[in-house]
Amino acid sequence: MTDPDRHDGKPTSATSQTGPNAPNGADALIGALVEGGVDTCFANPGTTEMHLVAALGRAPGMTTHLCLFEGVATGAADGYARMTGRPAMVLLHLGPGLANGMANLHNAKKAATPLVCVVGEHATHHLAYDAPLAADIEGMARTVSDVVITPDTPDHVARDTADLLGRLTRGDTRVGTVVMPNDVAWSPVSAEITRPDPRPAPAQDAPAIRAAADTLRAAGNKGLLLLGAPRLTRRAAALASAIGAATGCAVRTEAAVARMERGRDTHPLTRVPFHVDLALEALKDVAQAVLVGAREPVAFFAYPDRPSRLLPEGCGVTAIAPPLSDIEAPLAALAEALGAATTAPVTAPDASPGGDGPITPDTLGASVAATLPEGAIVVDESITNGAPMFTACAAAAPHDWLNNRGGSIGYSMPVSVGAATACPDRRVLCVTGDGSAAYTPQALWTMARGRLDVTVVILANRAYRILANEMSKIGAGRPDGTTMPMMELTDPTPDWVKIAEGHGVPGVRVDTAADLTQALARAHATPGPTLIEAVLA
Amino acid sequence: MTDPDRHDGKPTSATSQTGPNAPNGADALIGALVEGGVDTCFANPGTTEMHLVAALGRAPGMTTHLCLFEGVATGAADGYARMTGRPAMVLLHLGPGLANGMANLHNAKKAATPLVCVVGEHATHHLAYDAPLAADIEGMARTVSDVVITPDTPDHVARDTADLLGRLTRGDTRVGTVVMPNDVAWSPVSAEITRPDPRPAPAQDAPAIRAAADTLRAAGNKGLLLLGAPRLTRRAAALASAIGAATGCAVRTEAAVARMERGRDTHPLTRVPFHVDLALEALKDVAQAVLVGAREPVAFFAYPDRPSRLLPEGCGVTAIAPPLSDIEAPLAALAEALGAATTAPVTAPDASPGGDGPITPDTLGASVAATLPEGAIVVDESITNGAPMFTACAAAAPHDWLNNRGGSIGYSMPVSVGAATACPDRRVLCVTGDGSAAYTPQALWTMARGRLDVTVVILANRAYRILANEMSKIGAGRPDGTTMPMMELTDPTPDWVKIAEGHGVPGVRVDTAADLTQALARAHATPGPTLIEAVLA
Repeated sequence: MTDPDRHDGKPTSATSQTGPNAPNGADALIGALVEGGVDTCFANPGTTEMHLVAALGRAPGMTTHLCLFEGVATGAADGYARMTGRPAMVLLHLGPGLANGMANLHNAKKAATPLVCVVGEHATHHLAYDAPLAADIEGMARTVSDVVITPDTPDHVARDTADLLGRLTRGDTRVGTVVMPNDVAWSPVSAEITRPDPRPAPAQDAPAIRAAADTLRAAGNKGLLLLGAPRLTRRAAALASAIGAATGCAVRTEAAVARMERGRDTHPLTRVPFHVDLALEALKDVAQAVLVGAREPVAFFAYPDRPSRLLPEGCGVTAIAPPLSDIEAPLAALAEALGAATTAPVTAPDASPGGDGPITPDTLGASVAATLPEGAIVVDESITNGAPMFTACAAAAPHDWLNNRGGSIGYSMPVSVGAATACPDRRVLCVTGDGSAAYTPQALWTMARGRLDVTVVILANRAYRILANEMSKIGAGRPDGTTMPMMELTDPTPDWVKIAEGHGVPGVRVDTAADLTQALARAHATPGPTLIEAVLA
Repeated sequence: MTDPDRHDGKPTSATSQTGPNAPNGADALIGALVEGGVDTCFANPGTTEMHLVAALGRAPGMTTHLCLFEGVATGAADGYARMTGRPAMVLLHLGPGLANGMANLHNAKKAATPLVCVVGEHATHHLAYDAPLAADIEGMARTVSDVVITPDTPDHVARDTADLLGRLTRGDTRVGTVVMPNDVAWSPVSAEITRPDPRPAPAQDAPAIRAAADTLRAAGNKGLLLLGAPRLTRRAAALASAIGAATGCAVRTEAAVARMERGRDTHPLTRVPFHVDLALEALKDVAQAVLVGAREPVAFFAYPDRPSRLLPEGCGVTAIAPPLSDIEAPLAALAEALGAATTAPVTAPDASPGGDGPITPDTLGASVAATLPEGAIVVDESITNGAPMFTACAAAAPHDWLNNRGGSIGYSMPVSVGAATACPDRRVLCVTGDGSAAYTPQALWTMARGRLDVTVVILANRAYRILANEMSKIGAGRPDGTTMPMMELTDPTPDWVKIAEGHGVPGVRVDTAADLTQALARAHATPGPTLIEAVLA
């Protein structure tokens, strides 16, 4: 806005020019998003977003879901986009609202999930006065976004938004933040909208494919094909397995893949372990690594006496697709260059439920695998208890598996909200540690509000168990009487059944493997959300 | 760290050199904080903070309180520091942990609360690998901190921390963030610590005081004395009232004061109203404003057709103490220049409880005032229902009143944790809207864990009522069938009694004024926390 009147406390009147029928900047923003294929918004708005709320209300083809905490909204948008492949919108209130949503924006950015984060800003003429909620929104947004735009007039909103969406769709940019000054939202649009042309997708790099084929052929069983992608499909798993069979190389995925198709109709793929020592052991003989959509594997944290890079020193590294790009085409080209033909996966035996004893990581895996509905979406935040579950589910009904690439906990219940919203005909299974669940319990309310078909399993070990494990590994000594209270969730023990019921979600507590299997089967068969507190042995 | 070995994946071994008895960078940090008077830490640590956790565990004179969400930790540190006048420490896990704590850091910064925020960072040699949790911590921290430091060697940690504490104590800096690389934490200290000398406090500006006295004398009843301070004491209220009586000027406080002493032993002070139209009306006749620790009043949000500045155009403005500084000395000097003598406050009649009907803003005020224990600390996040409560409590037992200067909701339960920790012999009353409470419900768990004497009143109107009020005021039309669902907390209605019990806090629901009065009296008389869900008419 260049109108000098806007800066002396006498803003131009907007109410007389705009109304429900005269498009303003807010309408331009929402209209451009709808036109670009965005149909869903997860919102936690405030006063500065009321014009955007009004525009959302009058936009045909846009559905808005209210969340009680911003971290739920951003995680839900991540889950929605992972399952639809299309960006979802988030609507947040000024800098502090953005701050509350940033941890799950971080996760979305690391997972290369396309997402449009709209943050309301004070009217431009109000910024000089440092009002209570004033903050450096752009500064915050840059830390969790690939691009940040702040439209300066309603006439540029549609063009800038369409351009941003184009970049998201092409994959140049994943998390895009629009900082929307309130006067830009409430002032009328006067100009024509011009749209940028979409740019073409990059072509396949044939010489790189041939070089990778030669490398893997020469390396034999000292070769590694490492996969990473926003979505690792059945076909990609088949192609990778064929390449492994043809060359003798090991095939692995990154430790956390944003979305993987899995189950008994899919070639099983092994992950790089999370635990640094297990990862070093798993990769110690690799002489040549070919990366397809993957980054070179690194330790989750640094530890004294352990390296940051997980591949052995001197290991050769070649990439045939950039990190987190689509990988089917380069894998198909690599398989063709090697003459590797895909085969049907070997049908694994049916999973059997987890017996009748206490709940352990192994019985958890068996219970989950035996009861998993066809087409389920598993959102995994099982942290210290999940490794056997991932393995067991290779023999389960076909499903998608969503992992956290950003490592910020409090991710799985929000992402489950979004996945269930995106796929109303599929069941979502959210498996989360109790420590993680305590960051974003408000997600339960949006599950209840939307009658979302989500089964939440809280793995109640009543501790930040991973910290007790990590403390001595990182050289800080064993937890003792003074430090253990900083990682224990007892005194009081959270009652997750009551927390669920408080948010409108029915809950049940189980402490045997048999009861967990039964509770899972019942929850999956019951419309709407259910929470199961699984008390671990 | 300038050791080149640190950057090639072969970190210097630390475990062989440091142990529980050999001080490392973490010990240097915690030791400098303890020496500087910091005795309390609110923590939500992760792997990169394990050496800091170990150092906290072995530091005599430091107590650590675990919080289940970072926003609880930062709010608690704010409350602790407001009540003790000394900075508290917060311990957070990497960028995403900081992000979750940023909204309440924003509030603390706006309230000028001294606070040391320690954020663990990956080891310096690990940063090049962009591990999952890697983020721009300094970029995030700068948006909510007055100063950010990142020690580069253990030998500088104590010096840099002492310098930071000195700045906090002098008031140059309020929120200070220390980004602590993990290798700096785990490596041994080898050098002597040198401490900076404290700088002297600034002297009083006598000519400015005389000019302000002349201004107020000349303005008569068109004068305004506007107060703001980190702590507005009984004596400051008496001095301000004396100045008002001597000159005929109006005396007001800012809309939100971080901490105010109030009650029947204190001269009552009126606030600048939150609502922009009420504020403009209240200030419309002011010709000369004298600011004492206050900022010039501005609208909380911008609205079409309303100005940002709340004082009339042409109003003279003089400041005799900078925003959020201590104000007793300049007020005493101004009173002396005016020959204004303080008097005893007029004893207000005893508050009578709120009758037997439904709970309204008026009966809420009466119930709270009639039952408020001597020396109580009121943490006010009552939003749309609180104005009569503030007024009624002027006649209540002497108490402190804490307000949110930053406007980011989810503030009051965390701040109550800190206030109750700071003042174990006083009762804390936390009054919060249900929308606000849903941002940081995890605070209840730390209240239960600490047996903190907190009475939490949830004002359950089952809506973001303020948004429904604000929507038409800001020109976005009245809420309708499409937009009202974006601000209603029904379907499902949160059950706050169950949410409290789930976090280990006993709860009760009331829906009449008489029951609320009774529940308040009972809660105040019961050791430990109680939650009262007050269903509003």
